[in-house]
Amino acid sequence: MTKRAGYRPSLELVPEVLSGSRAAIARMISRAEGGYAEAAEALAALYRNAGKAHIIGITGVPGAGKSTLVATLIKSLSLEGHKVGVVAVDPSSPFSGGAILGDRIRMNEAAQASQAFVRSMATRGHLGGLAPATLQAVDILDAAQYSPIIIESVGVGQDEVEIVKAAHTVVVLSPPGLGDDIQAIKAGILEIADIHVVSKSDKPEAAAAVAALKGMLKLGASGSRSEWSPPVLSVSAVSGEHLDNLKAAIRRHWTHLKATGELAVRQREFCRTRILNMARHLFQEQFQEGAEDFERQLEAVVRREVDPMAAANVLLGWNKGRHE
Amino acid sequence: MTKRAGYRPSLELVPEVLSGSRAAIARMISRAEGGYAEAAEALAALYRNAGKAHIIGITGVPGAGKSTLVATLIKSLSLEGHKVGVVAVDPSSPFSGGAILGDRIRMNEAAQASQAFVRSMATRGHLGGLAPATLQAVDILDAAQYSPIIIESVGVGQDEVEIVKAAHTVVVLSPPGLGDDIQAIKAGILEIADIHVVSKSDKPEAAAAVAALKGMLKLGASGSRSEWSPPVLSVSAVSGEHLDNLKAAIRRHWTHLKATGELAVRQREFCRTRILNMARHLFQEQFQEGAEDFERQLEAVVRREVDPMAAANVLLGWNKGRHE
Repeated sequence: MTKRAGYRPSLELVPEVLSGSRAAIARMISRAEGGYAEAAEALAALYRNAGKAHIIGITGVPGAGKSTLVATLIKSLSLEGHKVGVVAVDPSSPFSGGAILGDRIRMNEAAQASQAFVRSMATRGHLGGLAPATLQAVDILDAAQYSPIIIESVGVGQDEVEIVKAAHTVVVLSPPGLGDDIQAIKAGILEIADIHVVSKSDKPEAAAAVAALKGMLKLGASGSRSEWSPPVLSVSAVSGEHLDNLKAAIRRHWTHLKATGELAVRQREFCRTRILNMARHLFQEQFQEGAEDFERQLEAVVRREVDPMAAANVLLGWNKGRHE
Repeated sequence: MTKRAGYRPSLELVPEVLSGSRAAIARMISRAEGGYAEAAEALAALYRNAGKAHIIGITGVPGAGKSTLVATLIKSLSLEGHKVGVVAVDPSSPFSGGAILGDRIRMNEAAQASQAFVRSMATRGHLGGLAPATLQAVDILDAAQYSPIIIESVGVGQDEVEIVKAAHTVVVLSPPGLGDDIQAIKAGILEIADIHVVSKSDKPEAAAAVAALKGMLKLGASGSRSEWSPPVLSVSAVSGEHLDNLKAAIRRHWTHLKATGELAVRQREFCRTRILNMARHLFQEQFQEGAEDFERQLEAVVRREVDPMAAANVLLGWNKGRHE
């Protein structure tokens, strides 16, 4: 990555980020995204200054109305005086590298009408795996005194598992009246919810969806991972109906986390995941740099002289197998 | 993992797997799943004997009818004399570790009526990331002369990216008449398709879905990654309508891969991914073993004295930052 003339060292931007400069924040996030080695020290400094924000994950199947809900929350929380940060995670296409979902328009409008800072990002790095920049963006906003910081995650899959580790409070949004097939896959997200929200409460099917969710939760109650019993709410993001209930539930969960010590437990788990993700990221980067050793092992695996595990062990300098 | 008395060394099972013993195959897959160090040598031997099968990935959003299509393909290909292998990949729940989707019944019935070997597996390992066992199961079936081997993958997300690297021919199944929101997320899978199939061709909406898909493909044509122009077919898995078209397209794609040399390119990419995944897996295992170094770094990250990147660099024994 060549830097333009007039490139300001990232460390110089740190005080500006800390004092809340939107330009400095935007620039720092871009540098995290670009993976500039030069930015590592600045990001470390910002990490050390972060840790105060309430991080809220909002997830749910496509079509659930996440962006609309986020837009409504931005407006409402901003009016109450909160400096809201949003990291909207787009699924990135593996081939084009481009983002897929477009309708962030309402959200951007909401951001412009307030002091909120909204950034769309790719979940996956160019080498695959959770992009470190996604969580670094949260650190940056956190260090800049944004709170709450909303992570909006699209879709179903590995990202939802990661988001539960990144967010203190996970809101899972379900659209009313989706078919059973779709409900089935949602089972995976249902388990990570701290708060359930059925969107479009103005629709007649919403009440039935709330009842169905409550039924499913009762069935799965034994799997609950804390004293917290996830409430099931119904909200209309468009009209704002019942939005206050959601905000109250989010506040109540935050208080619960702090009062019970669960916050510390979650943060520790979150740190563990981040270190591992980062190590894998750095490690993969090392391998991708066309290292001769790697190419030699690859050739042997392609010719089926060596299996991938043996090749990986050689590259790691290890001779051990897997766990016994 | 303690082994029972009478445990037979995995290497002893290798000749039985190679000669097609179903019991030996099932046992070897279980040992791969368990991650037994003892099985590593046997898996390496099987890997060296694999490499002949045509691997077909079948993917698509939940509700598209994948399991029904796979069941129909098993029956039809078995009747033609093929020894069909199936690795059905279930999304595993991050908390319960349990599989979510249940309706594999039709598929199992189809398997019992034939010589096919069907195995359901978790995509993700207990440490997260693609479970090495998933691809090792494909190796095992491959070494046991199964071909084609169908990998059925549920849902949307990272798994679809991995499957395209594991399969020679990727079939993406779309249900007719799903809403635009669902179509949008499918864009990510559409790009990895070698063959598009609209399911439930008996439904009136199927023709419109075929037309819509063709339209989307025309728009995205510039992104195509080979000379192959993915056909769009409509199939009724239940009635078997147009199934021959799909089988012909799969055969045509296989011939195309071999004739153009694209097969070698794909296999090389696939090996690269496997080595990297395996290295990350081994590496993470090393870290998870409660290593003192790791816990010390974790503590510093929790206390925000050190950021995750610096911690990862220390654990790797590296002092470099990221790519410049």
